[in-house]
Amino acid sequence: MGSKQASLKTQAQQVLRWQSGSKPVYRADELAAEEPLEIRIDTRSVSVTMRTPGHDQELAAGFLLTEGLIKSRADIARIALHPRNNEGNVINVFLSPKVTVDFAQLTRHVFASSSCGLCGKATIEAVHRHFKPVKTKLAVKAKTLASLPEQLRRSQETFERTGGLHAAAIFTAQGRLIVLREDVGRHNAVDKALGHGLLEGLLPFDRHILMVSGRASFEIMQKALAARLAVVAAVSAPSSLAARFGAESGQTLVGFLRGERMNVYSRVERVRF
Amino acid sequence: MGSKQASLKTQAQQVLRWQSGSKPVYRADELAAEEPLEIRIDTRSVSVTMRTPGHDQELAAGFLLTEGLIKSRADIARIALHPRNNEGNVINVFLSPKVTVDFAQLTRHVFASSSCGLCGKATIEAVHRHFKPVKTKLAVKAKTLASLPEQLRRSQETFERTGGLHAAAIFTAQGRLIVLREDVGRHNAVDKALGHGLLEGLLPFDRHILMVSGRASFEIMQKALAARLAVVAAVSAPSSLAARFGAESGQTLVGFLRGERMNVYSRVERVRF
Repeated sequence: MGSKQASLKTQAQQVLRWQSGSKPVYRADELAAEEPLEIRIDTRSVSVTMRTPGHDQELAAGFLLTEGLIKSRADIARIALHPRNNEGNVINVFLSPKVTVDFAQLTRHVFASSSCGLCGKATIEAVHRHFKPVKTKLAVKAKTLASLPEQLRRSQETFERTGGLHAAAIFTAQGRLIVLREDVGRHNAVDKALGHGLLEGLLPFDRHILMVSGRASFEIMQKALAARLAVVAAVSAPSSLAARFGAESGQTLVGFLRGERMNVYSRVERVRF
Repeated sequence: MGSKQASLKTQAQQVLRWQSGSKPVYRADELAAEEPLEIRIDTRSVSVTMRTPGHDQELAAGFLLTEGLIKSRADIARIALHPRNNEGNVINVFLSPKVTVDFAQLTRHVFASSSCGLCGKATIEAVHRHFKPVKTKLAVKAKTLASLPEQLRRSQETFERTGGLHAAAIFTAQGRLIVLREDVGRHNAVDKALGHGLLEGLLPFDRHILMVSGRASFEIMQKALAARLAVVAAVSAPSSLAARFGAESGQTLVGFLRGERMNVYSRVERVRF
């Protein structure tokens, strides 16, 4: 599946390009591929997501991990295409017999319910019932963090061609790239990178850094916590709840990481300047 | 509700800023606000989304419109905060007695099921069962389109301060701004702009242009179709399925719209050069 789908990451198309002062001209363009993927657990449908084809087994595994449905590689018996599928867009995850799935949890209301109503505090507490805050003495050098954007750019092939893909990458605390994944959806890119870690037996990522090409939201931080990441870095801005989530989850959040500058929004003590 | 929440669009925080060659310094920073919002229909919970507070009634109305649950302003009897809510994060939409909601549709699997499996074609056909393709002789000038990015930037106040918000705006075909909304979530920004149209009695937007600050995905095109928009423009790249959806839905899709240049990906006949 992997090699066939890797070629589906872009699709060629004719576009009409116009520039002020010139006549519009048709030219070939490459677009980031977007197709639906249905994820099933033991043939029961649990999610339909729009994603860029490729690394679908990782996406499925990462999705189940970050939703709190599975904890380790051993929880998965087998991942295979569903017999009734078209172009590889329905994927089945068969779990080990010992794993029990709480399907009610999939409504995502689990992240929101609280006796006092709905707010950022209740949302963070709900996440912490599933994923405990990280406690690690891990430190990273500012110089190491500063080296990541250039590495991300160099490895992000499809973005260069389409301008249309988000990237998520896992680095060691020393700045060595472990895996980079691209997708039209920012959450999918993170799920693929974390799913790779799960399937390759690399979890927990507690001596690692997650770097994303765009902004850092609450959900990115939550997914990082599911894989035990204590450092998250983003090229662009974080949201208020991402910063607050980082502070309360023991995670260092770095934003506007662009070569020789950065902002640290939470757990600054982990960065060595 | 509106005025109180407008002030919640950003949150101030201390951040540690570092620049190569200097010592890190603490400074005040403004972050784009992110909080959960639960949308209920007649007190039944239908969605929890992470959004930037403000224009929540529009967000709720736009969400119900683009999910195909309501068709017009008359379908809504009243929108009010739920009695059990915290910081205005639970909102109730009371529908007119004559409206029947198909709650099963909310699973979103409606956009994916097909006898031949799951693929872009089946997804587009599923959308077209709810929202017919647009048929309009509307034409827009390339010069008008070229004027939109600058208007968007000028009106996008919060982005200037935080770097963290997506924007969606509705313009007339002559380039006059009707409404601009910002949110940490790109889909929320679109739902707010369309919800504004619904609540103000401005729909259908069939003589209008939707402009988004980021990329154009399948879901943006689908939401635009729900409000009958025939022209969608994006500052960045479209996905393959967005372009295909536009072609099959009678929608003109413009990408990489940056002042004096643009690419037209579908229904080019509607653009006058």
